[in-house]
Amino acid sequence: MTFDPTDSVALTQALIRCESVTPHEGGALTLLQNVLEPAGFTCHRLVFSEPGTPDVDNLYARLGTGRPHLSFAGHTDVVPAGNESAWTVPPFSGDIRDGKIYGRGAVDMKGCVAAFVSAALKYIRHYSGLPRGSLSFLITGDEEGPSINGTMKILDWLKSRDEVVDACIVGEPSNPEALGDEIRIGRRGSVNAEIIVHGKQGHSAYPQIADNPVPKLARIIDRLATAKLDDGTPDFQPSNLQVTVISVPNTATNVIPGKAVAKINIRYNDLWRRPTIEAWVRDKLAHAAAEVGAKYDLSFSGTGDVFLTKPGPLVSTLKDAVQFVTGRVPKLTTSGGTSDARFIKDICPVVEFGLVNATIHQVDEHTSIADLEKLTDIYGRFISNYFRTG
Amino acid sequence: MTFDPTDSVALTQALIRCESVTPHEGGALTLLQNVLEPAGFTCHRLVFSEPGTPDVDNLYARLGTGRPHLSFAGHTDVVPAGNESAWTVPPFSGDIRDGKIYGRGAVDMKGCVAAFVSAALKYIRHYSGLPRGSLSFLITGDEEGPSINGTMKILDWLKSRDEVVDACIVGEPSNPEALGDEIRIGRRGSVNAEIIVHGKQGHSAYPQIADNPVPKLARIIDRLATAKLDDGTPDFQPSNLQVTVISVPNTATNVIPGKAVAKINIRYNDLWRRPTIEAWVRDKLAHAAAEVGAKYDLSFSGTGDVFLTKPGPLVSTLKDAVQFVTGRVPKLTTSGGTSDARFIKDICPVVEFGLVNATIHQVDEHTSIADLEKLTDIYGRFISNYFRTG
Repeated sequence: MTFDPTDSVALTQALIRCESVTPHEGGALTLLQNVLEPAGFTCHRLVFSEPGTPDVDNLYARLGTGRPHLSFAGHTDVVPAGNESAWTVPPFSGDIRDGKIYGRGAVDMKGCVAAFVSAALKYIRHYSGLPRGSLSFLITGDEEGPSINGTMKILDWLKSRDEVVDACIVGEPSNPEALGDEIRIGRRGSVNAEIIVHGKQGHSAYPQIADNPVPKLARIIDRLATAKLDDGTPDFQPSNLQVTVISVPNTATNVIPGKAVAKINIRYNDLWRRPTIEAWVRDKLAHAAAEVGAKYDLSFSGTGDVFLTKPGPLVSTLKDAVQFVTGRVPKLTTSGGTSDARFIKDICPVVEFGLVNATIHQVDEHTSIADLEKLTDIYGRFISNYFRTG
Repeated sequence: MTFDPTDSVALTQALIRCESVTPHEGGALTLLQNVLEPAGFTCHRLVFSEPGTPDVDNLYARLGTGRPHLSFAGHTDVVPAGNESAWTVPPFSGDIRDGKIYGRGAVDMKGCVAAFVSAALKYIRHYSGLPRGSLSFLITGDEEGPSINGTMKILDWLKSRDEVVDACIVGEPSNPEALGDEIRIGRRGSVNAEIIVHGKQGHSAYPQIADNPVPKLARIIDRLATAKLDDGTPDFQPSNLQVTVISVPNTATNVIPGKAVAKINIRYNDLWRRPTIEAWVRDKLAHAAAEVGAKYDLSFSGTGDVFLTKPGPLVSTLKDAVQFVTGRVPKLTTSGGTSDARFIKDICPVVEFGLVNATIHQVDEHTSIADLEKLTDIYGRFISNYFRTG
């Protein structure tokens, strides 16, 4: 180790230099393991496999065995650099320019991982261990990929070992513009539906001996797209349905297709659960199909039911820490896309807080050093207060 | 020549044995030229080219220079045999079984071409030429293909030579069930339209910063598909619009696409012409798009305006001949798909009459010898009466 791992800037740079483009480990998990083991963490490298998906390496590191058990969840895999020549600095250099660390993963989320590790190591150094409870890192290499051989399977593995987690913070970059903007305390649910309307193929010159499924599907889409799901709730925006894909199996304009397909994504709030939102789609579709005499198939896919972490020690401790360090009152939000919190919410209360997400997945992804150091302070204060009150 | 070309059965067999799968000439045009030249026809082999399409060989043969000028239009190219092992006889054998000539093109339309050639040769032999006027064959090798290097270009070539045609019969198999069912005296027009609705691409979790074109297109399709064009006319069935293709440029359910596309085919009757049907689409689309605030592009393609050959010597002479030979009164119809008549209608009155189309483009395409001989009689009587009265 040529750097001090309680220095979150140096640790972020070291992590960026590991080329861990999903699903490659790239040395990032080994680096964390080499930092955490000397501090007393028991480390498990968990490689999971599934037919049709890449094998993925993951790291679970826990210090202590008692309760409360606070876990930090994150990922070291990153999306590809894209057009490398368009970057100000090489995307895996971790170089600093004008007070900013540049690199793929600087924000999403190696910087956040480094901040929490640094904060935890400082805390442990101060107390020569944990004063009570236990602290763990649940670091996956499959958050930017299919998310099949990562967090979901780590949680199964924890369950099989009867390891209980009491609270979890996910280091996803939650702030749209400035550190302290938002803590994410929930996510909308997400479900996909595929609707196939069946017709009878034929020549467009002889529609009377064919059965065109396209206008039937169009009416169904119109009915679904204009139906209101709800007006939102105190914690969530209104649920939303988007018809994103439409297709037929032919490209010839003079052929009436035998079927027409629509794919739908619904983001739904806490007025719904997966079974109730599926029932809503089934009902609306049945009515629209009856209106036009459509025969159809309907199937659902996707994971991620809605969740909301209610006010409690996890949320209030984190909110206080953010406010203390930044001087700002973070909004408690439930907007945005999915994250691994969708899996973790099944085992314990979970919140998300990290860096500013303005440059994630883009060329010149970067974080200011000031933000990174403030985030380290926030996490440090959060850890300290959680073990005092949690 | 090992057969008598006034024998339409032998001539049909000889033509079937030429493997003229579109766009290959396969010896079929040469065979016809070798039959027509000895009877006094001046023959031109016309090879046309166009970038992106295969070169095509065509035959124009004319006897006489005077008016009226009667032309027979047909094609010797055929569609592929398909699953050859499923045929009762090899598809290019022209073998006879149980009074039927089997083979690819037996009906569509080598049998029809042979019947007209045989009838014409008998007529010419009887009169030692034509008593008046002129008779021509306009035979393409590009009717089953793109139809670009065939009839359309032959007509341009005729125009460039100031050759006028007074009437034309196309030997397309016009009878659904039995010889004498139908003479086709017109065709609906056919036009394709492509509608592109523009939106703004985005993630389905953030619909507020995207603009989904799919529901807009769905409403537009619904409006177009449920709009009535007309109730039909004395000569034509009602005009009909079919939305046949729908697509978006992505397949991911969590991506709101940047555009959505629909392709439409309209078959329209003689209440419309190409400009008026295009205007109808423009107007309906503008209203539907305004309803949902859709930005869109609209483009038209396809050839083949509506046509109707009004009662006159061509129709009445052919109708009388069919009735005389078959004892049946043919219906004068305008149904069905397109044929090369869509081009010929621009230069002279045109009708279609040929064999029974029940087996065209199928395995075991065949015509009965009885039908072929009756068709030869019909064409013979038609030629004879046309030059008497036409």
